[in-house]
Amino acid sequence: MSAPYFPVIDLPRRGDERGALVVAEAMADCPFEIRRVYWVFGTAEGVSRGFHAHHRTRQLAVCVSGSCDLRMNDGRETATIRLDSPDRALPIEPMVWHEMHNFSPDCVLLVMADAEYDEADYIRDFEAFTRYLTTV
Amino acid sequence: MSAPYFPVIDLPRRGDERGALVVAEAMADCPFEIRRVYWVFGTAEGVSRGFHAHHRTRQLAVCVSGSCDLRMNDGRETATIRLDSPDRALPIEPMVWHEMHNFSPDCVLLVMADAEYDEADYIRDFEAFTRYLTTV
Repeated sequence: MSAPYFPVIDLPRRGDERGALVVAEAMADCPFEIRRVYWVFGTAEGVSRGFHAHHRTRQLAVCVSGSCDLRMNDGRETATIRLDSPDRALPIEPMVWHEMHNFSPDCVLLVMADAEYDEADYIRDFEAFTRYLTTV
Repeated sequence: MSAPYFPVIDLPRRGDERGALVVAEAMADCPFEIRRVYWVFGTAEGVSRGFHAHHRTRQLAVCVSGSCDLRMNDGRETATIRLDSPDRALPIEPMVWHEMHNFSPDCVLLVMADAEYDEADYIRDFEAFTRYLTTV
């Protein structure tokens, strides 16, 4: 069996009898410097998000509460990854078209990114995305 | 009225009709480089956590789900800060004794830190903490 194409990272749990704790260290479990952290929550029922790729930004996504599905497409492979555990982290590398679906009502999707927000880094049109793939 | 002694930071919300998004950028809303991110969840009923200060580590805490209370004590001032909104962030600066109480069952406490975990950076004894305060 080949390795998964969009491999999930199992983050370390430091829990004890008091409760659970999961950690992501920059340049370690999280494979880049963390310049920005954001969390998506209160997503309306039936809403999907994402539908873009990044030219350069690297990200690491974790559902710290609830669950959602990440549909990934790098032009060669597609996969749907279910994030449903606070220690299950999915890297979203540059030039991967990604969509988030099936948010549970309690979903909090935490994302660590290696760059500040920059609209110029987004590719929001799927045909433009596929054109970039064939020209790079 | 004087300024609060442990001021809370209101993080920017980037929500729209799809749902909510809150962001913390390093060296901006989060006033330091983010070397480590961790999240505390599944805290057993009646359990309190923390009960330490750090020599050097700076942290920023947010309840991205649910709520808890942070009791802060820097040797001069004490305060109890309720974290109950995903855009309400509390800086925990070095040499502040802090305790977390009243975790709601759905609480996910997200913490950004400017340093890797280092047990030597912890002061876990309150009398030792007060001694450090008088000798520094």
